[in-house]
Amino acid sequence: MQDALLALQRYWTDRGCMIVQPFNTEVGAGTMNPATILRVLGPEPWHVAYVEPSVRPDDSRYGENPNRLQTHTQFQVILKPDPGNPVEVYLGSLEALGIDIRAHDVRFVEDNWAAPALGAWGLGWEVWLDGLEITQFTYFQQAGGRSVEPVSVEITYGIERILMALQNVGHFKDIAYADGITYGEVFGQSEYEMSRYYLDDADVSINQELFEAYATEARRMLDARLPVPAHDYVLKCSHTFNVLDARGAISTTERARAFGRMRALAREVSALWAERREELGYPLGVVAPPEPAVRPELPTVTGPRTVLFEIGLEELPPHEVTQQIAAVRTAVTEKLAATRLAHGAVTVDGTPRRIAVLVADVADREPDAEKTMRGPKLAAAYDADGKPTKAAQGFARGRGVPVEALERIEVGGVEHVGVTVPEPGRPAAEVLSDLFAAVVTELRADKNMRWRDGKLSFTRPIRWLTALYGETAVPVAVSSLLSGRTTRIRRTAETPVVDVPSAESYVDLLASHGITLGEADRRAAIVARAGELATAAGGVLDVDGEAAVIAEVTNLVEEPNPLVGSFDPKYLELPPQILTTVMRKHQRYLPVRDADGTLLPHFVAVANGPIDTDAVRAGNEAVLRARYEDAAFFWRADLKIAPVDMKAGLAKLTFADKLGSMADRAERIAATATDLARLVDLADAERSTVDRAGALAKFDLASSMVIELSSLAGTMAREYAKRAGETDAVATALYEMELPRGGGGDVPTTVPGALLALADRLDLLTGLSAVGEKATGSSDPFGLRRAAVGVVTILRAFPQLAPITLTAGLRAAAAHAAVDVTDEVLADLHEFLVRRYEQQLTDAGHDHHHIDAVLPLADAPAHADATLAELGKLAHDDDFVDLAQALARVRRIVPAGTPAAYDPTALVEPAEQALHRATAAVAVDLPEHPTLATFVPVAGALTTPINTFFDDVLVMAEDPNLRASRLGLLATIRDLAAPLLDWSAL
Amino acid sequence: MQDALLALQRYWTDRGCMIVQPFNTEVGAGTMNPATILRVLGPEPWHVAYVEPSVRPDDSRYGENPNRLQTHTQFQVILKPDPGNPVEVYLGSLEALGIDIRAHDVRFVEDNWAAPALGAWGLGWEVWLDGLEITQFTYFQQAGGRSVEPVSVEITYGIERILMALQNVGHFKDIAYADGITYGEVFGQSEYEMSRYYLDDADVSINQELFEAYATEARRMLDARLPVPAHDYVLKCSHTFNVLDARGAISTTERARAFGRMRALAREVSALWAERREELGYPLGVVAPPEPAVRPELPTVTGPRTVLFEIGLEELPPHEVTQQIAAVRTAVTEKLAATRLAHGAVTVDGTPRRIAVLVADVADREPDAEKTMRGPKLAAAYDADGKPTKAAQGFARGRGVPVEALERIEVGGVEHVGVTVPEPGRPAAEVLSDLFAAVVTELRADKNMRWRDGKLSFTRPIRWLTALYGETAVPVAVSSLLSGRTTRIRRTAETPVVDVPSAESYVDLLASHGITLGEADRRAAIVARAGELATAAGGVLDVDGEAAVIAEVTNLVEEPNPLVGSFDPKYLELPPQILTTVMRKHQRYLPVRDADGTLLPHFVAVANGPIDTDAVRAGNEAVLRARYEDAAFFWRADLKIAPVDMKAGLAKLTFADKLGSMADRAERIAATATDLARLVDLADAERSTVDRAGALAKFDLASSMVIELSSLAGTMAREYAKRAGETDAVATALYEMELPRGGGGDVPTTVPGALLALADRLDLLTGLSAVGEKATGSSDPFGLRRAAVGVVTILRAFPQLAPITLTAGLRAAAAHAAVDVTDEVLADLHEFLVRRYEQQLTDAGHDHHHIDAVLPLADAPAHADATLAELGKLAHDDDFVDLAQALARVRRIVPAGTPAAYDPTALVEPAEQALHRATAAVAVDLPEHPTLATFVPVAGALTTPINTFFDDVLVMAEDPNLRASRLGLLATIRDLAAPLLDWSAL
Repeated sequence: MQDALLALQRYWTDRGCMIVQPFNTEVGAGTMNPATILRVLGPEPWHVAYVEPSVRPDDSRYGENPNRLQTHTQFQVILKPDPGNPVEVYLGSLEALGIDIRAHDVRFVEDNWAAPALGAWGLGWEVWLDGLEITQFTYFQQAGGRSVEPVSVEITYGIERILMALQNVGHFKDIAYADGITYGEVFGQSEYEMSRYYLDDADVSINQELFEAYATEARRMLDARLPVPAHDYVLKCSHTFNVLDARGAISTTERARAFGRMRALAREVSALWAERREELGYPLGVVAPPEPAVRPELPTVTGPRTVLFEIGLEELPPHEVTQQIAAVRTAVTEKLAATRLAHGAVTVDGTPRRIAVLVADVADREPDAEKTMRGPKLAAAYDADGKPTKAAQGFARGRGVPVEALERIEVGGVEHVGVTVPEPGRPAAEVLSDLFAAVVTELRADKNMRWRDGKLSFTRPIRWLTALYGETAVPVAVSSLLSGRTTRIRRTAETPVVDVPSAESYVDLLASHGITLGEADRRAAIVARAGELATAAGGVLDVDGEAAVIAEVTNLVEEPNPLVGSFDPKYLELPPQILTTVMRKHQRYLPVRDADGTLLPHFVAVANGPIDTDAVRAGNEAVLRARYEDAAFFWRADLKIAPVDMKAGLAKLTFADKLGSMADRAERIAATATDLARLVDLADAERSTVDRAGALAKFDLASSMVIELSSLAGTMAREYAKRAGETDAVATALYEMELPRGGGGDVPTTVPGALLALADRLDLLTGLSAVGEKATGSSDPFGLRRAAVGVVTILRAFPQLAPITLTAGLRAAAAHAAVDVTDEVLADLHEFLVRRYEQQLTDAGHDHHHIDAVLPLADAPAHADATLAELGKLAHDDDFVDLAQALARVRRIVPAGTPAAYDPTALVEPAEQALHRATAAVAVDLPEHPTLATFVPVAGALTTPINTFFDDVLVMAEDPNLRASRLGLLATIRDLAAPLLDWSAL
Repeated sequence: MQDALLALQRYWTDRGCMIVQPFNTEVGAGTMNPATILRVLGPEPWHVAYVEPSVRPDDSRYGENPNRLQTHTQFQVILKPDPGNPVEVYLGSLEALGIDIRAHDVRFVEDNWAAPALGAWGLGWEVWLDGLEITQFTYFQQAGGRSVEPVSVEITYGIERILMALQNVGHFKDIAYADGITYGEVFGQSEYEMSRYYLDDADVSINQELFEAYATEARRMLDARLPVPAHDYVLKCSHTFNVLDARGAISTTERARAFGRMRALAREVSALWAERREELGYPLGVVAPPEPAVRPELPTVTGPRTVLFEIGLEELPPHEVTQQIAAVRTAVTEKLAATRLAHGAVTVDGTPRRIAVLVADVADREPDAEKTMRGPKLAAAYDADGKPTKAAQGFARGRGVPVEALERIEVGGVEHVGVTVPEPGRPAAEVLSDLFAAVVTELRADKNMRWRDGKLSFTRPIRWLTALYGETAVPVAVSSLLSGRTTRIRRTAETPVVDVPSAESYVDLLASHGITLGEADRRAAIVARAGELATAAGGVLDVDGEAAVIAEVTNLVEEPNPLVGSFDPKYLELPPQILTTVMRKHQRYLPVRDADGTLLPHFVAVANGPIDTDAVRAGNEAVLRARYEDAAFFWRADLKIAPVDMKAGLAKLTFADKLGSMADRAERIAATATDLARLVDLADAERSTVDRAGALAKFDLASSMVIELSSLAGTMAREYAKRAGETDAVATALYEMELPRGGGGDVPTTVPGALLALADRLDLLTGLSAVGEKATGSSDPFGLRRAAVGVVTILRAFPQLAPITLTAGLRAAAAHAAVDVTDEVLADLHEFLVRRYEQQLTDAGHDHHHIDAVLPLADAPAHADATLAELGKLAHDDDFVDLAQALARVRRIVPAGTPAAYDPTALVEPAEQALHRATAAVAVDLPEHPTLATFVPVAGALTTPINTFFDDVLVMAEDPNLRASRLGLLATIRDLAAPLLDWSAL
């Protein structure tokens, strides 16, 4: 291990990095060393590398867990400014570590880093070696709440993991630390003892005092304008907080207060540091911005020819590959349309490292054209003598023509003077150069970042541009980038930069180097090859079920190379959700199943490019084994704790500011679920299931497994509850209360599950809304939208829960909320829920008239659904259509607020008397709670009387009494029909 | 700088060391990292190297001092067990750092390390590179109060110093940390800000709380049997204590308590660690002790020939070279004398790396001899029948002879039986092999240590033995050492190990390799060459004045190579004592002066062996410049503080347990001096000088200069006082109160100086004795003996202070003591002082009769001196001799306790009546306070009457009244003479 650290130190020193020492106060990560978190601020250059033993009390495992240590070793590199090729330089460091990057599968998997407590975030990747995360690679964007300029590249190696992989050992203790001495032999006792301290023995009140003392000193040092000691004390605060947290001694209020305090201090430290460096005149100098590219003379081209424009990137997040292909396609198409350049088909496709535009048959220049410009009105252009006025002269001068050249033109029937100037067509090179430059400048993604080139902003750095018109390179200059005629292939290729002979040959050129440009082609290749491999392993892939993973891996590689791996069948004893969650979520592997869907001990991983398959397979298998071993460890550890004891751990988990801990939330959910259960008819067994499951609600959030794999919440509750002897019903309810997980996901199947799931979501909605959280178009950090969709979805799935209207549900949750929930908040929430329902109906393709018609019923979505279904059936029934029209007429004429009461004796015309009678009869015949299906046959008797009434009777009689009676009659009909739907919408 | 750290890491890794990381809590030195202080305990092997940023709040200088940092970088190596050649391996590391150890002067200068707070100590060296201390090299002997076994070698590099030297820069900020970036640019702000925190801004009460919290946690972790977190908290305690100390916030009682607490905790941590490792079954294994050497068959030799025995060593402390030469000479001579081996002269000489014994003309075997053994008395050997008794039979059997072989022998005039057995002479090789082995085993020095060979113990490791009889190697086996026929020369020589052809050629062989074996020869060579160099530089050396330095350098080198260097004359503005103190004490340089003793800006350094003189000169000059720059910095800093303000700093300096701070002590000195002044006649000016100097007493102990260079105490007081406008008299008194510094040093010249110096020493003596401290033959850590010598010396030098008797002085000091001083303590102290006086007289060569005679006067040493001087003059005066004899007769005959009163009328004999008259006349004629000089002429009149009295009168008359009168007369004479001296001793 020490050789590895020395090799890295040597490697980075040779690349201009300083080596500094680990910080001499406990830090949770190398990032917190002032050599990172302070030095990334400000304009000074800073290239540094260091080892950082990172202390995470929460990861204490007494040295027993093979992959988890209270102190692990990070190797941290900061490159400020970004050298322009940090990924390539980083790959060199892996070679320095003795990793054959040609044989192994190195991938860059989107991973965006944020440390809210430090006010810091950045975009980047986890770097995977044969499926093992070995490095965090981040472009630092903010620190201490301040944007950093220039941007720093932060590379953090996880040394123990790298060495476990390099040395092929399964437990950190078995790493050869030095010749003949293992990691465990050197650090085993310390791991055990410090774990004891952090988990069991640290004195809570002393550590609380320490926290207070440190925070006070940090505050004082800020006041003394000494950011260095202040930062030191912030770090001590942070460590002490972590100790308290690991000891389980942080109450909700303490957590919130402590975090707020540390965050505020950290921000002040950063600000003060930046200030002080400026006052000191930036002792290390100031980074010069990169020189802007200068576009050379444009070539003259002869066409028509194909045009290529390639935007070269560092690995995009997979979903951005898809999005950006579309965005560039739109941009290029629209921009071309705004020119006069003739062209054929526009094709845009891409990989994680490139978005490529190919435009067929592009003319070599725009045709010439003319343009007529309008001047002053003719009357104002010449004076009485017919001489050009000043206005005309000014216009002519402005257009660069002699005043004699003005002609008469007619605009909108009015005569003006005007002038026609030629618009000569621009050469293709000029058009394209400008157009592509604009495309690059305007690139934007969901999350954007800056890198070395401060003028550009995109989801990942743009590193090269290639632009060709046939064989001819077309210079495109954007900020500091200047396009060329080369493209980049696999970084580990012998010649990673290759010439593109012509635009026409580009796709084949890439293919000849193994790169499949087409996203769809890559997906197809993966599905085909992975399927073959699964078959060979005696199983099948669930291509549809794994669509999300397949989509992701398609855009993680340029040269898909699926391979099959296996794992020890003993792990099949773990719940399959655990196994597949690990495969999909952590590893992006495709599970292999037998014909009836049972997991087989195999998986398909998709590597990039030519690799040593055996080595990569072995690596991936080792990673999966480690993860399964970890999972098995959690599984066994969790099984030792009764659910009710585990639940006590929820007190340590904060839910949200002002809303208490997860324990508080679980209690609210249970209470709300019980109240909701009272609204409906339940069997005793169901009722006691609700109570018992409520008592255990969310207990698995405190399990090791769910802390590690949060997507298994609910799943683990079910598994642990079952094994703890709870009934199947309770276990199922605990599982189902987490459903649906997202749009289109499974919904609860049992009433107790549904009630708990509703209570869960209603608590979330009321609580968070009450403290001011809102979902916006672009941001919904607490998942309010998803919760609302869940409520509606569940209520639609359970017509028997109709008494739980949206209103009733919200009120039930509000009754238990931690904060006061105003009527206004409830009204807004109601509206928010209804809008979700409306959206679901729209997405499902319902007629918008029908949707509008049933929306007033949305408070009980299942009822609205039923009505909508009836509506669908009745839509083509003439009687219904007639009735609906008749009722709509009634509705339209009756002013809002008209009472549904009248004096029948005041009615004078036969038609109105007939209507009165028909109405009274219908009222008698209607069932108590009519549905559309029961209403229409009865109410159909009103169609003719209504139509006759309108034909024969003038509603707005002059006699106020008569008028009131007529309106009252109609209002009565309106109200009879109103509960069924909004007839006016039809 | 980082390249240096990497080079060291690589070098030590290649030699089997693990690399670990700096500790993640502030430590004052790499030693405190558990990788040293805990790992040196117990039997497990441990080879480790690491960088340790070492935090010393007290060294905070805001980054302004060129050589002093609050955080400096140590590189720490632990080799456990000692590999047997750690010095050689260490030298290799210097080469790895790019130091040409052939061109430069690398020396090993005695430096013994102890950290009482850690219960740790070891023996070793500072390693000097061209006069610059670059490394601390220690053989760890104890840690946590526990002896370590096996012994660890600890090597601590001071990285900043090494780099300042390698890079030839004068300020740490100018070290090139990495390409294009200086140390100051990287760490400057941190140095400044952390200095601010430590010196100015740290909150005292918060840090006190922290100390308390840490100590409590450490205590709790010990109780939980977790030494790792316990140690962590001990380190935090220690750092916090250092912060408080740097803030000037540690009161005396706090200091004592805190130290005691930390020491106790550290010891418990060590004990617990050792226990836990044992319980864990020593995960790293157990070091095997070295194999004992097996002596091969001894050769047969033919002589007489010269015998060589060389004991090869790592560098001895200089004074031990001299001592051990003598000790080995005695041992060899005595042991040879106990054999029958004929031999010529025994010569023993040596250098720091070898003690060599040469014995001329050693016979090749002992002559054969006989030995007669005594048996029972003849009478008991044979029975009445003449048959041997059982006793005789038993004796014969015991000696292995038949009973018939018994012969008669006479012992002390009594006849016994006996037997004579032959004692064949042993071959020389056997005699010598055993003898030399015993010499090595019995080697002992003032301070002894263990190294790899657990069975030997000496002041430094014994690394090789060479034993030759003429050309023949004589195997000597001691523990794991087996002698050979090679010796070792300069470690940097091409062949550092060379064959010794014969004992006779040994000295020349060494000489041919540049080594001067003879201590006296080396000294002579140094004096000669250094004198030449001084002359060439236009000055002279004070060979006698610098005798101590010359003696030291003589034994710091084997191949003395003096060179002259210079320093900037601007430093001559500093007080010369500063300059020479730095030269002698820190650098072992010889100052060069002009004819009238004024310092010149040159010095002579003595390098070892052939070196690149220019490079070594430049190095030494740079070191001196740095030290002078430091001194100039302190000088300027100190001058900014008024003495009275500086004195406030004494409160921070502990004097001794129970005796308060140095401030308390200064106050006591002032009070005592004032009281002493009241006992004598002083001019008003003198009296006010005593008061003023008393008020400032010891203030310079709080100055930066004296904290750095403690031997300048007093000197700096004088300089700073003068410059602060104090009178010359006060300045002188402040200087003189520190005199005499040691035996034979300068004494005060002024009465105020003498009074303060007396008060100083009397306070030390009474205080420390009262709390139980005693000087023993081998140990006098508080300098009680030196203080006592000082008191006596001063009183002898100042006859005008005669009213200050030892008794009066001690009582005056006791009156102000911090603790109760009993009469018994005072009596013991009085005796202790008198013994010092007696020792001084003996050392000065006075007749011991005279000494005994004046010792009763020692309470006033100046008076005793005067008497002694008179005695010297009178010793050959017949009248005096007669008088003395007469008075001695009187003294001898009068029983103790006889009252000096008699009834003259009772006297009957003329001789007694004559004596009565003579006595009465003398009593009248004597001056009031007679001295010997005034007494003898007057008392001479008694000689004849006394002698006549004894001739004529029987003192012991039968008449009791008469007898009483005669004794009373004689007692009167006795008492007349008694105050002058002890006549009976003459």
